[in-house]
Amino acid sequence: MTAQETASLLSGWDNILILTHKRPDGDTTGCAIALCRALRQAGKTAFVLPNPDATSLFDPYWGDTLAPQDFQPEKVVSVDIASQGLFPENAQVYLNKVDLAIDHHPSNEGFGHVNCVEPDKAACGEIIYDVARCLVGDLSPDIALPLYVAVSTDTGCFSYPNTSPNTHRVAAALMETGIDSHLVNKRHFRTKSYTRLRVEGRMMDTMELHDGGKVAIAAISLKDMAQLGATERDVEDIAAVTGQLEGVETAVTIRELNPGECKLSVRTGESLNASQVCGLLGGGGHAAAAGCTVHGTVNEAKQAILAAIRTVQAEG
Amino acid sequence: MTAQETASLLSGWDNILILTHKRPDGDTTGCAIALCRALRQAGKTAFVLPNPDATSLFDPYWGDTLAPQDFQPEKVVSVDIASQGLFPENAQVYLNKVDLAIDHHPSNEGFGHVNCVEPDKAACGEIIYDVARCLVGDLSPDIALPLYVAVSTDTGCFSYPNTSPNTHRVAAALMETGIDSHLVNKRHFRTKSYTRLRVEGRMMDTMELHDGGKVAIAAISLKDMAQLGATERDVEDIAAVTGQLEGVETAVTIRELNPGECKLSVRTGESLNASQVCGLLGGGGHAAAAGCTVHGTVNEAKQAILAAIRTVQAEG
Repeated sequence: MTAQETASLLSGWDNILILTHKRPDGDTTGCAIALCRALRQAGKTAFVLPNPDATSLFDPYWGDTLAPQDFQPEKVVSVDIASQGLFPENAQVYLNKVDLAIDHHPSNEGFGHVNCVEPDKAACGEIIYDVARCLVGDLSPDIALPLYVAVSTDTGCFSYPNTSPNTHRVAAALMETGIDSHLVNKRHFRTKSYTRLRVEGRMMDTMELHDGGKVAIAAISLKDMAQLGATERDVEDIAAVTGQLEGVETAVTIRELNPGECKLSVRTGESLNASQVCGLLGGGGHAAAAGCTVHGTVNEAKQAILAAIRTVQAEG
Repeated sequence: MTAQETASLLSGWDNILILTHKRPDGDTTGCAIALCRALRQAGKTAFVLPNPDATSLFDPYWGDTLAPQDFQPEKVVSVDIASQGLFPENAQVYLNKVDLAIDHHPSNEGFGHVNCVEPDKAACGEIIYDVARCLVGDLSPDIALPLYVAVSTDTGCFSYPNTSPNTHRVAAALMETGIDSHLVNKRHFRTKSYTRLRVEGRMMDTMELHDGGKVAIAAISLKDMAQLGATERDVEDIAAVTGQLEGVETAVTIRELNPGECKLSVRTGESLNASQVCGLLGGGGHAAAAGCTVHGTVNEAKQAILAAIRTVQAEG
């Protein structure tokens, strides 16, 4: 179903509830807020179902879009949700009652009664942009801002390989409404908590190079975590830190989860299959990014992964 | 002079030498390469003057554009050079012989016989894009790639406040030629040397918060530098590391330059004038970013800048 057809369908509906996915990111959040406001501008009653996993990161954008407890929807729309496994707990009641699913994931399961899926779009926000334009014409800043959040965060501020010419054209159009895109990018790309910065610093400062500089291993131990007062939130996506190292083909990040239990993330270039490496230690994943759990100390985990890397290299 | 007029002027010229600025960045480099290729496609002989300050960062882009020793130009064009003080050493001979200056700096001195200055453009690459389109019509990837480097690097990958809708529109058009923009962004925004990463790590791990978390101070000592094997190149723009800290209003970076001599960079939010703070210690700069030199140890520099911050706060 095209954006135009999707907008036509929505035009005939009212009392619409919008669902976001588990562990909501900028794309699902921004899409839900923008669609809600576009529907309201088109004369509808619309709300976003509060997401129990929502963090404070997107607090500035919600406004008055969140549904009150007693809202009785006639129609349910999901945005950026690829599968029913990604429904938040309080959305389980709508599992088989999604009237319209709007998404950009190639893996979308088509669980909606009607589905608008465009896998060539970098962000679901690009689809909602088209739908909103069909619904209300020129976009107001309060619709453009959450859409910019969606597009920018889902493309790593226009740096990831998914970024397309359309992504840039949508960003240009959104900026024309006068939104402060710089503030968005500062908040989402250039702001880190003190603890997060110290965790990254500790990892970077103690990182080791092996095998002639081709393998980098960074670790964060329970002792480090305790000393820095770090929580789960402070070590989210921490594997990215090692991945930016020049000349390194294999980047390993080790997190001590419990005494004697380490979680490893492995990112590789084209010359090595990360999934094969982690497979040797009981894990798995993709060719370029995989993971496994090693029972032992941080040092034992280091030795185990180095051995696995060398084994796969010797076979290759 | 508009881009169209600039292209018309260039159309009547031949044997053109293109100049870049001191400590060349992605904008001046990308503009020079792209303009050189566009001129050649338009049937001209054109070369870029080799820049003695050029680092290996832009090596992938030069191709065969660099001028041989014996090239005798009839016309000289500068790109992204704001003032004659920014001419590299080997370009001093052209100081008063620039036939055409193309630039986007509001402070451009107008030293060219003819000047095309558009201060509303985030990158000079946006102007060269227009000029090249007038010269050759549709751009080939070998012109689009250096222009993408120019636009992306000068806007911090579309995140700085200078980024405009036009920046995004130009990026979209450049990407349409099929260039690998992701590789560019990975090279310039997501790749760091091992030493650089360790320097950043050391600074982040030892960073101190003062005055209720409003002031962050990070330092890198000569001892740290020696221990990490760090050179000048590894500490370039190191002040940005402290600036990303959440909730901090004043970010101070201290570099021990020589025993007993420290260089300080101060970045402030709206509530404090950095120039005033540094002025108290004999330095200066802008309201949001300033610097000074303190004679003393890293610890003495810390105490001095904290005292200066508190003095300016007490006055404000």
